[in-house]
Amino acid sequence: MTATPTATATANVTATPQPVTVLGLGNLGQAIAAAFLDAGHPTTVWNRTRSRADALVARGARRAEDPAAAIAASELVVVAVLDSDTARAVLDPAADALKGRTLVNLTSSTPGPSGELAAWATDAGADYLAGAVYAVPQTLGTADAFVLYSGSAAAHERHRERLALLGRDVFVGTDPSLAAVHDVAVLSGMYGMFAGFFQAMALARSAAIPAADLTEHLVTWLKAAADALPGFAREIDSGDYSTDTSSLEMNAAGLDSILAATEAQGLPTDLIAPVRALLATQIAQGHGGLSLARAVESLPAPAAR
Amino acid sequence: MTATPTATATANVTATPQPVTVLGLGNLGQAIAAAFLDAGHPTTVWNRTRSRADALVARGARRAEDPAAAIAASELVVVAVLDSDTARAVLDPAADALKGRTLVNLTSSTPGPSGELAAWATDAGADYLAGAVYAVPQTLGTADAFVLYSGSAAAHERHRERLALLGRDVFVGTDPSLAAVHDVAVLSGMYGMFAGFFQAMALARSAAIPAADLTEHLVTWLKAAADALPGFAREIDSGDYSTDTSSLEMNAAGLDSILAATEAQGLPTDLIAPVRALLATQIAQGHGGLSLARAVESLPAPAAR
Repeated sequence: MTATPTATATANVTATPQPVTVLGLGNLGQAIAAAFLDAGHPTTVWNRTRSRADALVARGARRAEDPAAAIAASELVVVAVLDSDTARAVLDPAADALKGRTLVNLTSSTPGPSGELAAWATDAGADYLAGAVYAVPQTLGTADAFVLYSGSAAAHERHRERLALLGRDVFVGTDPSLAAVHDVAVLSGMYGMFAGFFQAMALARSAAIPAADLTEHLVTWLKAAADALPGFAREIDSGDYSTDTSSLEMNAAGLDSILAATEAQGLPTDLIAPVRALLATQIAQGHGGLSLARAVESLPAPAAR
Repeated sequence: MTATPTATATANVTATPQPVTVLGLGNLGQAIAAAFLDAGHPTTVWNRTRSRADALVARGARRAEDPAAAIAASELVVVAVLDSDTARAVLDPAADALKGRTLVNLTSSTPGPSGELAAWATDAGADYLAGAVYAVPQTLGTADAFVLYSGSAAAHERHRERLALLGRDVFVGTDPSLAAVHDVAVLSGMYGMFAGFFQAMALARSAAIPAADLTEHLVTWLKAAADALPGFAREIDSGDYSTDTSSLEMNAAGLDSILAATEAQGLPTDLIAPVRALLATQIAQGHGGLSLARAVESLPAPAAR
């Protein structure tokens, strides 16, 4: 099967039908199975709570009675359950069936459990690919969704045409836990943004500004500020933090004003103060005239490799 | 002078020339003066360090010898200096000149000092408008820039055509400190996002992932997640936090995994842990099944008005 790197999800509707199995039919698993069905692939589904498969069966999916039977139905097996422990519990009794199969694990995970499951599945004879899905169920399969994969490059290449049905696919490396490392980092970034949002909303409410009004301006500015992050990343990769525009000292002064104003509004500063502390460490080391991006150097340096 | 709400910066190049004064020629003040000059308005400039005006004078600006002379040259006076204290120090000796002028203060500020300066300028007889500028100097005057104004609605209406030269203009209310309240909130949101970015970069480095590679995916996801914020804001404004998709409990479980993985990578969790604490407060109060947006209720409620 030749991969079609430039194919879009829509173009793939005409791809050669090939059996696919989906284990786990939560919101994500249901959306995945529906994407395969819509593209014309014979789709076998299994879920511990049997009724979660009913709507898919009505649309043409085959229901398997247990994970082993589901795995036996297709060379490509996608698992999307609650967490790595659940994935292991589902797969363990079906280990014999995994030999020679491609197992694509789209269960949310973190690097440790992800690596353990990969080792177990590889021992069982599966060609293993881990994926971190960036989509809400409604956007799965659209241009707004993307999936980061790591593990078997051969499995990724072999199934790229079908994986592209879920969203833009990006292979980040052969260490199977790499997708989970990316995921923890990306979600940390997201929760940082959410922390800032909650703080902004509390400030808005303290001044009787409707949340929706403030959010309109906030979203505009967050997207503009997000476009500055690749420039910061280049500084981090190069170690060259020289700047004329946004120094640690300038940002520290701005943050001090923000923290003082927050306290004046009667609000705690816990959500924002920790980033000020990163700047303080760099300034104390004499780097105040360098770029804001250098704040990352206040966090532990990468281990020597 | 009739305002032209739909006019773009480009369209305004042909607007009737009208004298404008700019006090303070840092990066922002220089960009502001250049935008007025480019649009054909007779522009008078002043800066404490005289040489900062040289390039503008070479392009046709008039140099004033002191703030009072600069203010006397134009009905519209824009001030963009380091902070509110500096603005007051610049304007104080020129208070007599302010009578009958429109003073647009684009100096970064916070609600307290902003309100005090507004009261002082109004006492001096100026029609006062405060503005918070969202632009880097390079984007000032483009569609990517916007300015939130508060204070005199009449001043905003009278000078809308010239203010539109700086970027999309939004009037947020007649309390002159409102622009600064918005600014503190929006910048809190931005620094929250930066905190998440630094955490993400530290995680990337701990796994030898280039910052640029991780950032590419992070920016894509941050922009998608930012599009969820208006929905959260509607929940906050309505107080209806019912949800089927993103409950406090689901997010708490996700955050626990992220925090554990962060510790496993040998990194501190200070930047992200405070947002987990907001969720814990709501879950302890029995709201775990409600929307993530309810986390804002863990911060002090708005004062009764």
